[in-house]
Amino acid sequence: MSQRIGRYTLQLSTPVITGFAGVAGKKEGEGPLGEYFDKVFEDTKLGQKSWEAAESALLTSAVTTAITKAGISSDKIDMIFVGDLLNQSIASTFGVKDLAVPHIGLFGACSTMALSLCLAGVFVDAGSADCAVAATSSHFCSTERQFRFPLEYGGKRTPTSQWTVTGSGAAVVEAKGDGVKINAVTFGKIMDYDIKDANNMGAAMAPAACDTLKRFFEDTDSRPEDYDLILTGDLGKVGADLLCQLLEREGYVLGENYNDCGLMIFDLKQQQVDAGGSGCGCSGAVLCSLILNEMLKGKYKKVLFVGTGALMSPTSTQQGQAIPAVAHLVMLTA
Amino acid sequence: MSQRIGRYTLQLSTPVITGFAGVAGKKEGEGPLGEYFDKVFEDTKLGQKSWEAAESALLTSAVTTAITKAGISSDKIDMIFVGDLLNQSIASTFGVKDLAVPHIGLFGACSTMALSLCLAGVFVDAGSADCAVAATSSHFCSTERQFRFPLEYGGKRTPTSQWTVTGSGAAVVEAKGDGVKINAVTFGKIMDYDIKDANNMGAAMAPAACDTLKRFFEDTDSRPEDYDLILTGDLGKVGADLLCQLLEREGYVLGENYNDCGLMIFDLKQQQVDAGGSGCGCSGAVLCSLILNEMLKGKYKKVLFVGTGALMSPTSTQQGQAIPAVAHLVMLTA
Repeated sequence: MSQRIGRYTLQLSTPVITGFAGVAGKKEGEGPLGEYFDKVFEDTKLGQKSWEAAESALLTSAVTTAITKAGISSDKIDMIFVGDLLNQSIASTFGVKDLAVPHIGLFGACSTMALSLCLAGVFVDAGSADCAVAATSSHFCSTERQFRFPLEYGGKRTPTSQWTVTGSGAAVVEAKGDGVKINAVTFGKIMDYDIKDANNMGAAMAPAACDTLKRFFEDTDSRPEDYDLILTGDLGKVGADLLCQLLEREGYVLGENYNDCGLMIFDLKQQQVDAGGSGCGCSGAVLCSLILNEMLKGKYKKVLFVGTGALMSPTSTQQGQAIPAVAHLVMLTA
Repeated sequence: MSQRIGRYTLQLSTPVITGFAGVAGKKEGEGPLGEYFDKVFEDTKLGQKSWEAAESALLTSAVTTAITKAGISSDKIDMIFVGDLLNQSIASTFGVKDLAVPHIGLFGACSTMALSLCLAGVFVDAGSADCAVAATSSHFCSTERQFRFPLEYGGKRTPTSQWTVTGSGAAVVEAKGDGVKINAVTFGKIMDYDIKDANNMGAAMAPAACDTLKRFFEDTDSRPEDYDLILTGDLGKVGADLLCQLLEREGYVLGENYNDCGLMIFDLKQQQVDAGGSGCGCSGAVLCSLILNEMLKGKYKKVLFVGTGALMSPTSTQQGQAIPAVAHLVMLTA
């Protein structure tokens, strides 16, 4: 049963990530983390008829691989917490419907991996679930045409723009077993700094990451240097720099132990992705491959994973609204 | 702390709905429930520049009214569970961002009032929150142009189609206080009966309602006649009839104690809404006005509220996909 620490943080005692999987597309497979993914799909459509169906297939692959690695059968799963970036979350719906498990649909934009892990952790800790799955996905092609331009148009990219990752991450959270533990969670508040440039999500999301980290540090009376890794996902280059500046104003200096999934998944210059990666699948695939594996190997013992999401739509942007953002934090321990 | 009953149902002991509000638009105000809403907005745009912003204003109105009626200040709220039908849930984001409380975004389509109440109930019961808000909204004009046709086009409606409600519902759930109790919750599985007619959501959603009710009856060893009211939201006329048929095959007969929010909110013939109301705001506004008030007055003691949602998008429909659906159940007691 979760214990409140301070005003906003819930300390959990039992939840363990017993299985996890990160899968990715061709471009991601050619990046620095290529060898760490459970699967790399060379075919951008994964044999499907549409990019949306391809994204669902990515999610199915991550979820079923995570379940297999946890050594459970799907009838043991009490519920799945899942969401994505597509309108009405169709990647999730069609990606997990055949699992036939209770379905809790989320919308947290690119923060969904963290949000789903937070909820799965709280449910398992409370005894409301013995086994819950947290998962998310994104696909460059389904996202690009929904949020920006038809791919065929070849829209120009700005230096602050981020490249949506074709990928998916999934984690099985159980009350017992071996694995990385979910130690604490802090849910994000919506922050709106009146950023209106839809090609600069990093700037829109950095204040949310700052606010959540600050509240977590205050609640737990801890500091950045107490953690082996502080990992945001996905602020990219612009947002990561801004986060460091914003936190410094609050008295917290992020050092060598800070990184961002959007900066890790691609070689920014060589792969021409401007400010870095983004999309729900970016932090999902990075956390559920490299990071959790390195934690199991002992490289990191205490990790703060902070998922950030920009809560806008093309409609809100076209109507002149700013881009509010949210960031959810999960503390993981090995 | 929640107790598992059977395979799928969580029995809760502490959560109380200490404040609630249902607000609606002009057409809904002219319907049979007009006098029960906390507010009826005669101006379809609520003084905003767009229908999307109007929907956000509806949600803000419901949430702030519910908070006021609960007699709390917003800094007491631990988190809000909220979602809507618009792409990337922009009605929710812009409707609650100024509250500045931790934000858990949901996507459950028209099941969102039930889904958000389920989660708020579990969190409060587990001690993970002392005070949580559950809320949702929909707006005829923002929904119609997103899912169907531009309003100006004057698209023909089919007899099985439902009319999206302009409305919003919000409930404050606390660990202590007077009010209706959240007694049990059952999360829905996605059901896909291969219904492909986007103008017949009732048929797509009825199997999900049937599945969740059946699992709840089995888990709790109870029968339909044990409840004063079984309320779905929103199957409309076609879906409600189908649910009765489907449940009868499973050995459960729904009688006079069964109703559907989509059938209650409008006078179907006089208001020309074909098969009835729909949209997240339909079950939200009906539950959080008439139903909870009647429970407080003692008319109903045991109510099963089953929110149903069609998990499709125009893209999935245009790509030839069927319409999967989900239904979440909340048992309420006075």
